[in-house]
Amino acid sequence: MTTVPEQYKDILNSKSVAHIATIGPKGEPQSTPVWFGWDGEHILFSLTKGRQKYHNLLRDPQIALSITDPQEIHRYLEIRGTVERIDEDPNLDFINSMANKYLGLEKYPWHQPGDERVIIVVKPEHTTHQG
Amino acid sequence: MTTVPEQYKDILNSKSVAHIATIGPKGEPQSTPVWFGWDGEHILFSLTKGRQKYHNLLRDPQIALSITDPQEIHRYLEIRGTVERIDEDPNLDFINSMANKYLGLEKYPWHQPGDERVIIVVKPEHTTHQG
Repeated sequence: MTTVPEQYKDILNSKSVAHIATIGPKGEPQSTPVWFGWDGEHILFSLTKGRQKYHNLLRDPQIALSITDPQEIHRYLEIRGTVERIDEDPNLDFINSMANKYLGLEKYPWHQPGDERVIIVVKPEHTTHQG
Repeated sequence: MTTVPEQYKDILNSKSVAHIATIGPKGEPQSTPVWFGWDGEHILFSLTKGRQKYHNLLRDPQIALSITDPQEIHRYLEIRGTVERIDEDPNLDFINSMANKYLGLEKYPWHQPGDERVIIVVKPEHTTHQG
């Protein structure tokens, strides 16, 4: 069962980006926008294995994401949780589905040969919200 | 002197919100969108003294903010830094200026009697960007 209140699920089905907060190597907070998916129980997003955020999450799986309502600037949902698992994305199915959601394209246009993509699967444990 | 690259300063002058990453009481990351200002050297935003983020920053002044380009979904700027100082906002001048920037209103419409507002002044120390 998810901990996300019903009245904020529209934000999870929007095309807003999620800004993820992770802990860096010196214990410092880091923030980055990512394209995200929602499977009804988990937040999912894509990273390459070369990214700082990937290494942050291997070291410390705690994460928070904040997502604003694209229609109403004052309304947002924050999800805090932990990385439940990290899946491989060898055929780029997931990142391509994100390009479809956010760009309306069949394939992610910025894939580079050699990029190894993973899917970060986040289990929500706590939420905050406004509006 | 600022550490923000010239070619990303347009994002600091946009009406995007900044998503701030702070460290919570158990060492966990937290993320929240805020309205922000830019004075040419510092990022400024408003909090009430009752907010979790305020207490987080008193405990640990490390912060990161990510801001997306409102015109181009793939482009963003992340600023990492520390809270240089926290100013009082007794006459609500700063929060009213934010309501003017983001809502086009003269006064912040959600002020509650008893809310004590402060201005968080962040010194950028490092940036990451994309696009």
